[in-house]
Amino acid sequence: MLYLYVDSDREIWQESLQLKLPLDVVAWPHSVDAEQVEYVAAWNPPDGFFAPFTHLKGIFALGAGLDRFHKRDDIAPGTPLIRLTDAGMAQQMLEYVLHGILHFQRDFDRYLQQQEQNIWQSWPYRSARELRVSVLGLGELGGHVAQVLAQLGYQVQGWSRTPKHLEGITTCHGMAALPNLLQHTDVLVSILPSTPETRGLLNADTLILLPRGAVVINAGRGDLIELRALIDQLDSGHLRGAQLDVFPQEPLTAENPIWQHPKLIITPHVAAATLVEEATSQIASKLAQWQQGQAVAGLVTKAAM
Amino acid sequence: MLYLYVDSDREIWQESLQLKLPLDVVAWPHSVDAEQVEYVAAWNPPDGFFAPFTHLKGIFALGAGLDRFHKRDDIAPGTPLIRLTDAGMAQQMLEYVLHGILHFQRDFDRYLQQQEQNIWQSWPYRSARELRVSVLGLGELGGHVAQVLAQLGYQVQGWSRTPKHLEGITTCHGMAALPNLLQHTDVLVSILPSTPETRGLLNADTLILLPRGAVVINAGRGDLIELRALIDQLDSGHLRGAQLDVFPQEPLTAENPIWQHPKLIITPHVAAATLVEEATSQIASKLAQWQQGQAVAGLVTKAAM
Ligand SMILES: NC(=O)c1ccc[n+]([C@@H]2O[C@H](COP(=O)([O-])OP(=O)(O)OC[C@H]3O[C@@H](n4cnc5c(N)ncnc54)[C@H](OP(=O)(O)O)[C@@H]3O)[C@@H](O)[C@H]2O)c1
Ligand SMILES: NC(=O)c1ccc[n+]([C@@H]2O[C@H](COP(=O)([O-])OP(=O)(O)OC[C@H]3O[C@@H](n4cnc5c(N)ncnc54)[C@H](OP(=O)(O)O)[C@@H]3O)[C@@H](O)[C@H]2O)c1
Repeated sequence: MLYLYVDSDREIWQESLQLKLPLDVVAWPHSVDAEQVEYVAAWNPPDGFFAPFTHLKGIFALGAGLDRFHKRDDIAPGTPLIRLTDAGMAQQMLEYVLHGILHFQRDFDRYLQQQEQNIWQSWPYRSARELRVSVLGLGELGGHVAQVLAQLGYQVQGWSRTPKHLEGITTCHGMAALPNLLQHTDVLVSILPSTPETRGLLNADTLILLPRGAVVINAGRGDLIELRALIDQLDSGHLRGAQLDVFPQEPLTAENPIWQHPKLIITPHVAAATLVEEATSQIASKLAQWQQGQAVAGLVTKAAM
Repeated sequence: MLYLYVDSDREIWQESLQLKLPLDVVAWPHSVDAEQVEYVAAWNPPDGFFAPFTHLKGIFALGAGLDRFHKRDDIAPGTPLIRLTDAGMAQQMLEYVLHGILHFQRDFDRYLQQQEQNIWQSWPYRSARELRVSVLGLGELGGHVAQVLAQLGYQVQGWSRTPKHLEGITTCHGMAALPNLLQHTDVLVSILPSTPETRGLLNADTLILLPRGAVVINAGRGDLIELRALIDQLDSGHLRGAQLDVFPQEPLTAENPIWQHPKLIITPHVAAATLVEEATSQIASKLAQWQQGQAVAGLVTKAAM
């Protein structure tokens, strides 16, 4: 049996999975015999959710990031975790990032402000090929984003943990390479996962390395950036603006003052949504591969804490 | 001698042209012996500007549109007019249009409004492949825009005067095909020139054919759209929004109430700027082709009025 936990569109997910899987699919909060549960497909279930499932063979994460699963103590170390790989998310991420780039490259921040004041004044064009876009994270999502941006004419640089070779892109890797990269970046795009190494990576010391007037797009995880440092550098005029999709605490509460920051574009974690049809098809084919002993993209085992 | 008229960056233009052309280049307002002027390179010179030049062999327009030249009565019918073809403008136009598409496709209009009210709420993703983008005008600029949008995954349809075949795009042509096209359009992109046939093309009768919730991007000419009709349909809720770069009267005056329309993004005719280096190189090579009797892209003769 596969037990499903989603907090919206539950019936759509269940029907779609049941059509595609050779297993019974039961959805939370329907009660089940916990020992019968072989697989769970879930996104952000409450604390303790996994504890009763003592015969679990594996967990399908209904998203691209596994960081929250690794952090949980109701999942036994060694449990196989399988995340979605792309499944329509890379195209969405590209669109989200491209919006942020175009917004600042083509001065829409300035034109919107001028529009509020009835001012007709043009700004000189800055071409794609002179705009240095640095993509942090060259995985399923970042790799696609970086390559299409290069095809569209941007000067793209990429950064990852291990060395990478990507058509049309200058790449570098490892912490030691980061300062030099930041010093040559007009648009910083973060599509990193949250890990002990990446948390707080963009802080007062690293953000100040960006040239004056640079912009930041964060679509990875909220804890990659120290928000206070980002806002200080927006306020000082060192940075021009930022488009943020992810935050240390989500949802942002209505009381949070950053909503009203004039240099921020805030979106509610929508850069790359999980698409039901793409996701359920991918789960079905990954389950089949796994049961046949084949390699499964995105499968790792839960780390010990 | 080539006489140059530009209203900004005069010295940069003059130096660049002088470096590349086998002619003396003199820039307005420097006075010249009018009979010595063989060529003019100009953008929007004042009325009567061309009248003294009785020995003119041709006029280089420092832009993509010739409509304003055709309308002038200080240029003799039959005078060769040579416009810029692309010269870096197609990429700019693509960027401008793509910003407008992404802004509405990815709900940035809604997220910006929610941000003003400290509201965290997501909207369902609408994929590129289900978004029907119709490009009116498939010339140097529109043809490029349509093709790259198709490569990026959008469902692109194109419309022109004469039949066209473009990779990955459904095309149609002529006035009779327009109503059906509009009925199947989520994003209407106008990159048409202003001609007797196209002026006022997008009016109350045609805009109402767009499905409810459609958006309009106009980067062609301001007189293609009847602004009153567009605003009525934004106000009634039939249309969702518009990104406008061109207007019947430019610049928009500070008194114009449309600045403050909440569903409009207004930019000051910047979608595709003439780039000095690209433009002067193109003028030099077109002049050489012409003097050698070769075909010159973008050359037409001034129409009789
Ligand atoms: N905002 C949203 O809506 C949304 C939606 C989906 C995903 N996301 C976020 O996007 C992230 C990336 O997704 P993905 O599918 O592309 O993940 P992925 O395939 O695992 O790729 C992660 C990339 O980050 C790099 N990386 C990890 N740790 C690093 C370090 N310490 N230093 C340098 N580079 C490091 C990896 O480098 P190596 O390849 O060298 O290991 C890899 O290139 C997810 O983890 C999630 O946080 C956000
Ligand atoms: N906003 C800005 O910054 C900016 C900058 C540059 C240009 N523009 C505007 O963009 C326009 C297009 O530039 P371009 O270089 O692409 O021009 P172009 O190469 O002359 O192409 C014009 C296109 O419009 C089509 N067209 C003309 N009249 C039509 C009609 N009655 N019905 C249907 N289609 C018609 C033509 O069809 P056929 O090919 O079948 O003749 C052609 O495909 C310029 O004229 C200018 O107004 C704006």
